[in-house]
Amino acid sequence: MRAEIITIGDELLIGQVVDTNSAWMAQRLNEAGIELYQITSVHDDREHILKALDEAFSRADIVLTTGGLGPTKDDITKHVMCEYFGTTLVEDSRVREHIHELYKERPDVLNRLTATQWLVPESAKILTNRVGSAPIMVFQKEIDYQPKTLIAMPGVPHEMKIAMTEQVMPFLKEKIIKKQGEIIHRTWMLYGIAESTLAILIEDWENALPTTMHLAYLPKDGIIRLRLSTYGEASNEEIEMQLAALKPLIADYLIATEDLPLETILGNLLKERQQTIATAESCTGGRLAAVLNAQSGSSAYYMGSVVAYDNTIKEQVLGVAHDTLMEWGAVSEQTVREMAEGLRALMNTDYAIATSGIAGPTGGTPDKPVGTVWIAWAMPEGTIAKCFHFGVAREREQITQRAVTEALVGLIKSLNTKH
Amino acid sequence: MRAEIITIGDELLIGQVVDTNSAWMAQRLNEAGIELYQITSVHDDREHILKALDEAFSRADIVLTTGGLGPTKDDITKHVMCEYFGTTLVEDSRVREHIHELYKERPDVLNRLTATQWLVPESAKILTNRVGSAPIMVFQKEIDYQPKTLIAMPGVPHEMKIAMTEQVMPFLKEKIIKKQGEIIHRTWMLYGIAESTLAILIEDWENALPTTMHLAYLPKDGIIRLRLSTYGEASNEEIEMQLAALKPLIADYLIATEDLPLETILGNLLKERQQTIATAESCTGGRLAAVLNAQSGSSAYYMGSVVAYDNTIKEQVLGVAHDTLMEWGAVSEQTVREMAEGLRALMNTDYAIATSGIAGPTGGTPDKPVGTVWIAWAMPEGTIAKCFHFGVAREREQITQRAVTEALVGLIKSLNTKH
Repeated sequence: MRAEIITIGDELLIGQVVDTNSAWMAQRLNEAGIELYQITSVHDDREHILKALDEAFSRADIVLTTGGLGPTKDDITKHVMCEYFGTTLVEDSRVREHIHELYKERPDVLNRLTATQWLVPESAKILTNRVGSAPIMVFQKEIDYQPKTLIAMPGVPHEMKIAMTEQVMPFLKEKIIKKQGEIIHRTWMLYGIAESTLAILIEDWENALPTTMHLAYLPKDGIIRLRLSTYGEASNEEIEMQLAALKPLIADYLIATEDLPLETILGNLLKERQQTIATAESCTGGRLAAVLNAQSGSSAYYMGSVVAYDNTIKEQVLGVAHDTLMEWGAVSEQTVREMAEGLRALMNTDYAIATSGIAGPTGGTPDKPVGTVWIAWAMPEGTIAKCFHFGVAREREQITQRAVTEALVGLIKSLNTKH
Repeated sequence: MRAEIITIGDELLIGQVVDTNSAWMAQRLNEAGIELYQITSVHDDREHILKALDEAFSRADIVLTTGGLGPTKDDITKHVMCEYFGTTLVEDSRVREHIHELYKERPDVLNRLTATQWLVPESAKILTNRVGSAPIMVFQKEIDYQPKTLIAMPGVPHEMKIAMTEQVMPFLKEKIIKKQGEIIHRTWMLYGIAESTLAILIEDWENALPTTMHLAYLPKDGIIRLRLSTYGEASNEEIEMQLAALKPLIADYLIATEDLPLETILGNLLKERQQTIATAESCTGGRLAAVLNAQSGSSAYYMGSVVAYDNTIKEQVLGVAHDTLMEWGAVSEQTVREMAEGLRALMNTDYAIATSGIAGPTGGTPDKPVGTVWIAWAMPEGTIAKCFHFGVAREREQITQRAVTEALVGLIKSLNTKH
């Protein structure tokens, strides 16, 4: 079963909003074994939407749209859907009651524009939007004798996610049961090897893969995800057999045999060991903290952080010696070591990671160009520090992201070797 | 002049990678007055890419593609472009030398797969990819007597951004000079009003807008961006006149007359005043710190942060009284006040913002459901604290994002009223 996504909104096409919806929806479709063929972003424009629907239905059985369902003038999706499916708007009392309930403490929102939200296309099945006023609409129709389904969802990410999870995916899964096998993906995470070097290293293995399997290299932030996929034709056993043959070739670079965020891998390792962590950050500026506590349950191992942007904070809160900063500077092995050790003592944790570097675009020197980052890992068995050069050509954002990755990978590798 | 973007890569269609490239490129095109009509994401698949090119060129003069230019098997973009433009690959000595220079300290990368990177389409103009091995290719051709341009760029975001900034945009700007007027956008940021309430409030003004102007409502994270656009037909003066008429209607909700990140607005206010800030974070977990120091130059006003995830850190580092935590709990007015005041004293700043809340999905109680967040602003004139309820239906990520927004907006409003 093949799907497409159409995201609707002028704001996407002037770059005011990054379309994060599509990737999230793509993951859900993929998990369910529905092939996503294309993602298309179009304007809040009648003809454009109609054309995109025609094109998408010429290729796919299911089209999911997001956006353009608000109550204001620029939101036209509902009207265009009515035209496309030859139906008209009617009042839906269930939706009206739901919206009244939703805004019972905000009477100002229950105005005549919001009232247009309970007008829904007569021929559509309406799914409940538990957290918003825009109804989720399911249209079903034969086009050229093929059954086609369109599901229109709001563009607000948390409304779309709840709709997808609670309503749309259960609806779609029911449709595809017995219709096809699931797509199986296995993703391994590798670190410390270039993509082309890896490709040569595993070339013979890759060439010997059965035609029912497909290999993809997905490099991101210094990590290469190696994804082996099969489309229901090969079994789980066959894919495991191939992976068993791959493992000895790449063992030196393997950091995980699942596609998990680095912080989850590290969190799981710390939880297993009942150990704790804290971070002392200069150039990463709180990003390491934010990444570590992004998941529920992180309070079991993550204690806290000090973002010591200013040198006085490095001295007064983390206890870095004034002389160290004077003699070696903030971006130095000596300083990151003292930051990590100072914080480990202050927060009484098993591990502390410290970062200090020049994220740019200014602040570089010939000795320490932009992209120079020192990272220290203070551990029960002692402190390790390492210098990285992420390159003057990279952006501030990119450099801090790479520093976060290295900080996490460094500790993951250290904990893995202790097994 | 009309453009389209095609992003190429299987990883986009299984949701493994969020397409952030398109929004960034869309902004650059928009600034240059080039209309972006559609964004399409397609598979690493010959037929799919060929079809997408055909469709895009039927609508647009310029097509920008990203992705599929790596040296591995799954990267086929270069070969498909050759087929589409009827040309073949030839060795380019300038590209070969550039790649040798790029990897001179990493001879392992200079293998036979990388060597395929200096094979380039004979008829294409090659722009330098300063930071990577994939050449940037410009194809120009008449299709149905119309001049068409295709520019293929790598999918790695920092390579694409450098290519766009240094090579592609100057090339495109030269093309469009004299061909058309620029698109003008004016974006105002509003806070504290629902979208539909706002629409009613300004309805008469909106209905009286000339047909050459277009208004869009762009709500995100509690902020509504109100964007007035004109396509070169109305002058700057006319748009300013319309905005002058709008201002008194929405003055109560206006937080900025430019579309800037909140942290930039706050940073500018603090720089003007030569004042400093620090953050004490529990539920926002370092995100407020990360947002505040995301820009170069933030060291002028941002001193540092303490992420006090664990209660002992709240006590020992921030000096929150043990009795306060026992009596009122971590998520309480008393605790955030003491966190903010403790940090302001510790880091000796003018302002300190503290957050403590229940980001979920677990940890809620009937008294303090998930989504409850206390924020305190410690200021020279005293401390203010406020409780927010971001709703049990929201995700952890969404709740922390809203808390960051409220923390920044709270201080911006406070500083604005001091003018």
